[in-house]
Amino acid sequence: MSEEEERKGSAGEGETEAVTLLSLIERQDADGLHRYFDAREPIDIAQEAEELSDEDLAKLPDMLTDDEMAALMEESDDDERIRIAHMLDNRRLLLAFHYMQKDDIVDILGDFPTGRQKEVINLMKTDDRKIITDLLKYPEDSAGGIMTTGYLVLKEERTVEQGLERIREVGPKTEYIDTIYILDEHRKLVGQIGLRDLLSSPRSTLIRDIMDRHVISVTPETDQEEAARLVSRYDLKALPVASRGQMLGIITLDDIIDVIVDEADEDILQMGGVNKEESLDTPMWESVKMRLPWLLVNLLTAFLASAVVKGFEDTISKVVALSAIMTIISGMGGNAGTQTMSIVVRHLSKEDIDWKTFWHDLGKELMVGLIDGAVNGAVTGLVVLVMYHNVYLFPIVLMSMIGNLLVAGIFGLFVPVLIQKCHADPAIASSIFLTTATDCLGFFIFLGLAQIFMPLLV
Amino acid sequence: MSEEEERKGSAGEGETEAVTLLSLIERQDADGLHRYFDAREPIDIAQEAEELSDEDLAKLPDMLTDDEMAALMEESDDDERIRIAHMLDNRRLLLAFHYMQKDDIVDILGDFPTGRQKEVINLMKTDDRKIITDLLKYPEDSAGGIMTTGYLVLKEERTVEQGLERIREVGPKTEYIDTIYILDEHRKLVGQIGLRDLLSSPRSTLIRDIMDRHVISVTPETDQEEAARLVSRYDLKALPVASRGQMLGIITLDDIIDVIVDEADEDILQMGGVNKEESLDTPMWESVKMRLPWLLVNLLTAFLASAVVKGFEDTISKVVALSAIMTIISGMGGNAGTQTMSIVVRHLSKEDIDWKTFWHDLGKELMVGLIDGAVNGAVTGLVVLVMYHNVYLFPIVLMSMIGNLLVAGIFGLFVPVLIQKCHADPAIASSIFLTTATDCLGFFIFLGLAQIFMPLLV
Repeated sequence: MSEEEERKGSAGEGETEAVTLLSLIERQDADGLHRYFDAREPIDIAQEAEELSDEDLAKLPDMLTDDEMAALMEESDDDERIRIAHMLDNRRLLLAFHYMQKDDIVDILGDFPTGRQKEVINLMKTDDRKIITDLLKYPEDSAGGIMTTGYLVLKEERTVEQGLERIREVGPKTEYIDTIYILDEHRKLVGQIGLRDLLSSPRSTLIRDIMDRHVISVTPETDQEEAARLVSRYDLKALPVASRGQMLGIITLDDIIDVIVDEADEDILQMGGVNKEESLDTPMWESVKMRLPWLLVNLLTAFLASAVVKGFEDTISKVVALSAIMTIISGMGGNAGTQTMSIVVRHLSKEDIDWKTFWHDLGKELMVGLIDGAVNGAVTGLVVLVMYHNVYLFPIVLMSMIGNLLVAGIFGLFVPVLIQKCHADPAIASSIFLTTATDCLGFFIFLGLAQIFMPLLV
Repeated sequence: MSEEEERKGSAGEGETEAVTLLSLIERQDADGLHRYFDAREPIDIAQEAEELSDEDLAKLPDMLTDDEMAALMEESDDDERIRIAHMLDNRRLLLAFHYMQKDDIVDILGDFPTGRQKEVINLMKTDDRKIITDLLKYPEDSAGGIMTTGYLVLKEERTVEQGLERIREVGPKTEYIDTIYILDEHRKLVGQIGLRDLLSSPRSTLIRDIMDRHVISVTPETDQEEAARLVSRYDLKALPVASRGQMLGIITLDDIIDVIVDEADEDILQMGGVNKEESLDTPMWESVKMRLPWLLVNLLTAFLASAVVKGFEDTISKVVALSAIMTIISGMGGNAGTQTMSIVVRHLSKEDIDWKTFWHDLGKELMVGLIDGAVNGAVTGLVVLVMYHNVYLFPIVLMSMIGNLLVAGIFGLFVPVLIQKCHADPAIASSIFLTTATDCLGFFIFLGLAQIFMPLLV
C-alpha cells in the first residue's frame, strides 16, 4: 500500500489514514470502501477509478452500493462510463439509475452503443421510459439535452397554502425546489415564484396574484451556449425549457457552469488550433491525428506567403537586408491582428455584432492600426536605419508597417464576423485566415515598396 | 420617438408599444417608467442607460423608486455606477442600498472615491456598517470580495422542527436558503444540510444526526478563480467562506458564473495579447494605450529573430531561395507550439501540473513534434524540391522542420509551466516567449544547416 499512499490528494480533510481505492479493492474491504465514499467527493473517486486496470475495476460493482455506483458513474468521463457499464448487468444499471437525475441518466445512455441503450430503456418503468426516450431525442449540446425533469409546478389558481403543502409532499424528491413554475389551465407555463416569496406571502393568497409573469425560457432546440448566455446575463437561478408554451424541463446552474467551462475551453483550444477534445493526457497518436490536419492547413497558407516572397527573389538578391526585415513586418501584422481578433471573437461568443456600430468599430480599428503602425514602424525604421545605414529604408519600413497593421485591423475584425455569418465557430478558423492575410500582404507591401524604390536602396 | 424605436431589443416579450428609456425620460412619464422596469430585465435597462447623456441620466433618480434605482445600479458596469452615484445624494443612495445584497453594495462602494465611500458608510446603521467595513477589506477578486452574508445558520443541537421554524422566520429575507449551514457551540462551521433533506426528515430528529459533516469551504483570502474551480469540480450549490472555522459568508452560483465567464475572457484576451479590460467599445485612444505596449514587446522579440536572419545574410545572398523557405519553418514552429501551449494553459487554469507525469508529458510532446515535424517537413521538402530543383534542400528542410517542432513542443510545455511557477498568469506572456523561441531557433536551425551544406546548395 505504501507506494500508493501519496498517489491522490483527497477532499476528505479530516481523514488521516492513507488508503486508496486500489488498496481497498485489493483487500476486498467493502466496509472501508463505504467509508472511503463517505469521506470523499465522488469526482475525486471517479478520477482514481480511471487509473484502475479493467481487472480491478471489475471488482468494484460487487463491493459498492447502488447509490455509490450511481455517484461514480455520474462523475466519470465518457470513456470511463462505457468501461463501467461493461462491468454491470442491466438489472444493476437500473438500480443505480434509481439514484440519478434524469439528465444524467440520459447522458450516460447517450454514450452507450444503440443495442445496449435500447435493452436498458425497455427494462424501465413506463413513465421513466417515456421521459428518457423523449430526452434522448435532443442533441447533447442543446437545451433539451442538458435539461432535467426534477422541478416543481403549480396551477395558477392554487393558493400559497396549497403550494407549500405540495412542496412538503414532493419537494424532498425533487432536484430543484428554489423556484416553482406556474401553469395555466392548459398547462402552459405562465409564471414563476421563488420559494422565499412563497414562504413570506399570506397563506390564502392566490398564486396567480403574486407570481412573476415575466419568465425567461428557451426551447429544447436552443443551443446550450445560448442558454448559458441567458443565465449569465440575467443572473437566473434556473432556466425553464418549454416548447409551444408547454414546460418540458429546467436547466440547473451546475449544468450551466459545465457548459460555460466547456465552451471557454473550446474557444481557447480552437483558437490555438487544437481539437476541443484534446487534453494533456490524450494518447500520443491521438494527439498527432488531431493536430496534424490543422498544421497541414497552416502549411498551405505558409506556402502562399512563401510564394509571395519567392516572387521578389530578384529584389531580395539585390538587397539581402530585406529578408531580415520582412519577417518583422509580417510578424507584427500577425500580432496586431490577433489582438483585434481576440476581442471580436470574445464579443461574438456573447452577443451578435451590431451592424449599426460596425462601421464605427472598423473606423476605430483602422485608427488604432494607423497609430500602432506608425509607432512600431518608426521604431523599426530607426533600428534598421542604424543597422544598414540606408536612409530610404526608413520610409519603406514605416509605410509597410502601417499598411500591414491596417490589414491586421481589417482582417482581425472582418474574418471572425464573416465566419460567424457562415454559421461556423469564429474561434476555430479565424487565426488561419488572419495570419494568411498579414503574412502574404505584409511581405507583399514591404517587398513591393522595396522593389519600387530599389534604385534608392542599392 | 420613431428614430428611437429600433434602438434596443427588449426582454419584455409581451409588450408591443415602442417606448425607450430615453423617450420616457423626455416625456417625464414616471408611470410609464415603472411599467418599463416591470416588463424588462434590469441589465437590459442598465445597458440602455449607459447610452444616456449626463443630462438625461440626471432626471432618472426623481422618476424611479428606490428598488428600481437599486436594480439599475446592481446591473450597471463600474464606470456607469460612478456616473449614477454622482447624481444621487447619500440619503437616496442608502435607500437604494436597502434593496441590495451586501456583496453588491460592497462592489459599488469599492468603485467610489474613498471620501464618498467613508461618508456613506458612516451614515449606515451600526450592524450594516460593521459588515460592509469587514467585506471591504477583502480584495475584489478574493473569495471574501465576492461572498455575501445572506445565508442561514443553525446550531447543531437544534431539531428539524426548530430548523424549519427558523426558515419560516428569516428565510423570506435571506438571499440563499437552499443549504443551511450548521455551527457547533463555538459557532464553528461543522456541517450543512439541504433544505430538501430538512423537509423530508422526521421533525424531532437532531440536526447533528442528519447533517452532512463534509463541507467544502474556502478562506476569505482564496482567489476567486480557485473558488470557481471548486464549485465547478464538485458541483456545489454554494461555497461557504470561513476563517479559522468561523463562517463569514457564502459565495452563490451566480457570482461563480460571473467569475468563470470573466476568467475565460481574461485567458482568451490575454493569450491574444490584449488587456482583459478591453472590449469592442473601448475608446480608440484607450485601445492604443492598452495594445501598444504588447506590440512593442513583440517588436523586441521580432528584432531578435531578425538579428538571427541578419547573421546569415551571406548564406542567403548565395541562395536567395532560403529567404522564402525560412518563413515556412519558423511559422510552422509557432503554430505547433501554440497547439501545445493552448492545451497546457487550459490545463493549468484548472489544476496544477503533476510533476510525476510531467516527464511523460514532455516525452509525448517530443514524439508528437517528431512525427508532425516529419510529415510537415517531408511535404515542405517535396514542394521545395519541385520548385527549386535542388535535391539537397529536401533533407535540410526536413531536419529543420523536425528540429523546430521539437523546439515548439519543449517551449510550448515548459513556458506556461514556468510562468505559473513564477506566480504569473501563463495566459499572458506564454505566447511571446514561445514565438521568440520558434522564430529565432527556427531561423537558426534552418539557415545554420543551409550554411553547413552550402557547397551542395550552390
